[in-house]
Amino acid sequence: MSVMSDQPGSQAEYDRHIAVRATGDGGYAADLTDGWAVGGGLNGGYLLAVIGNALRAANPDRPDPIAMSAYYLSASVAGPATVQTRTVREGRSTTTVAADLVQGEEVRITALATYGDLSRLTDEVATTADELVLPPPEECVPNTMAPEELRRFAPLMARFEMLFDPAYAGWAVGEPSGRGALQAWFRLKDGREPDPVSLLTVVDALPPVTFDLGRTGWAPTMELTVHVRAVPAPGWLRVRHATRNIAGGMFEEDCEVWDSAGRLVAQSRQLARVPR
Amino acid sequence: MSVMSDQPGSQAEYDRHIAVRATGDGGYAADLTDGWAVGGGLNGGYLLAVIGNALRAANPDRPDPIAMSAYYLSASVAGPATVQTRTVREGRSTTTVAADLVQGEEVRITALATYGDLSRLTDEVATTADELVLPPPEECVPNTMAPEELRRFAPLMARFEMLFDPAYAGWAVGEPSGRGALQAWFRLKDGREPDPVSLLTVVDALPPVTFDLGRTGWAPTMELTVHVRAVPAPGWLRVRHATRNIAGGMFEEDCEVWDSAGRLVAQSRQLARVPR
Repeated sequence: MSVMSDQPGSQAEYDRHIAVRATGDGGYAADLTDGWAVGGGLNGGYLLAVIGNALRAANPDRPDPIAMSAYYLSASVAGPATVQTRTVREGRSTTTVAADLVQGEEVRITALATYGDLSRLTDEVATTADELVLPPPEECVPNTMAPEELRRFAPLMARFEMLFDPAYAGWAVGEPSGRGALQAWFRLKDGREPDPVSLLTVVDALPPVTFDLGRTGWAPTMELTVHVRAVPAPGWLRVRHATRNIAGGMFEEDCEVWDSAGRLVAQSRQLARVPR
Repeated sequence: MSVMSDQPGSQAEYDRHIAVRATGDGGYAADLTDGWAVGGGLNGGYLLAVIGNALRAANPDRPDPIAMSAYYLSASVAGPATVQTRTVREGRSTTTVAADLVQGEEVRITALATYGDLSRLTDEVATTADELVLPPPEECVPNTMAPEELRRFAPLMARFEMLFDPAYAGWAVGEPSGRGALQAWFRLKDGREPDPVSLLTVVDALPPVTFDLGRTGWAPTMELTVHVRAVPAPGWLRVRHATRNIAGGMFEEDCEVWDSAGRLVAQSRQLARVPR
């Protein structure tokens, strides 16, 4: 049994955490770590990357997630898990796949995804989105300065460096901006450079955007869809989360991720339950 | 065998078009109509409502789609189809389901969805999104004025009334605005009022937003996720589509749907291939 990670042979902590090993018939074994714990469960973005890594292993010729939709059914816990993968259809340039993350008898997450080879896409970029501008890192608020209570509740914060734009970081001192947005510089703590699979983690790594509306408490994801649009360049990522529609006990959270080369590399939207 | 539609007993054309009948073991038979044809296939929003209607029939106590993610695998054609449904998990207030739309041996669409009862949600609305403002209907451009060539290519346009905001309708006369948006009033031609299932059609009924960027030609949907956030009030809907990120031969298309009561009732995002 070989251990596969997104960067073969990498000893980076992140690659060890998302590693899977093939067990036959499309199954992949993983060992989920409590290093990505938040409250009573594990971070949804971390789990998405474990699934994404298994699907990468199952589709070596089309190794990149282009679209992935995950439905979160029950909270995952640290320990053994299985990712069961299935090919739904092989198209001309992409393959659509299904995957379930299972612990014991419980399906934690069920997902669909389209995999392909991002390096083979056309070079055309006609993006009209304005590049996300953040204050320089030295003017931002590092996650190491997060309240002790928050860091205890969310051990995952030790896995990355996150430098919050101070314009949207008032929630840390009880003064949320009320605009429904969060934005930050992001990189993995272990120095591991971003790639298409790690972007699956990045889109769900920030605290819930509802913090900026004065609603603290974690927000359980019901559904998250991410589009990975390009292979990210090495270096710091810039991430923005925003919400517009809080209603009926739910809210949508949109995320965009820009790489160091100024490219919009990932977009996601999730539907989450409003924290109580 | 009983014929089920979203409005039981309704003879509205739309309800006949999306009707399904249970065939046992979670299967539902449908008869896809070429009334929703566009180019060589059938409209993705129409197909989504056929799937949504089957899932509604399969979950009578939780009849409303709250989130649905569909991966489009091959073009559907008019004629018999089967929607095979499966319950993934029943939660406290929602049920997560899977569905495949199949014709012959071909899976046309594979989907995941969360169903619930929208009428049971809390009344809380804290939306910060600005209500979509359109010029009055009499100042808009009706789809009946669309170029003959377009209407022949897209017979589905006879199924609804669509009144385009003239600020984004220049593409019809070869003068696209270049802003990457389309917005319009919308209602079904047969007078059938909107409901949660018909919103699945509404989010993919407008022409591709790329028309407004001077790229004519239809844009095949790869993935579409929709969140239905409230039961729509009767009357005209207001719909806006926008894109920000055209790159690598693909673009995202965001859609928002507002009802006559000023409520943001649906949000969707799709990933589509750029028209050639």
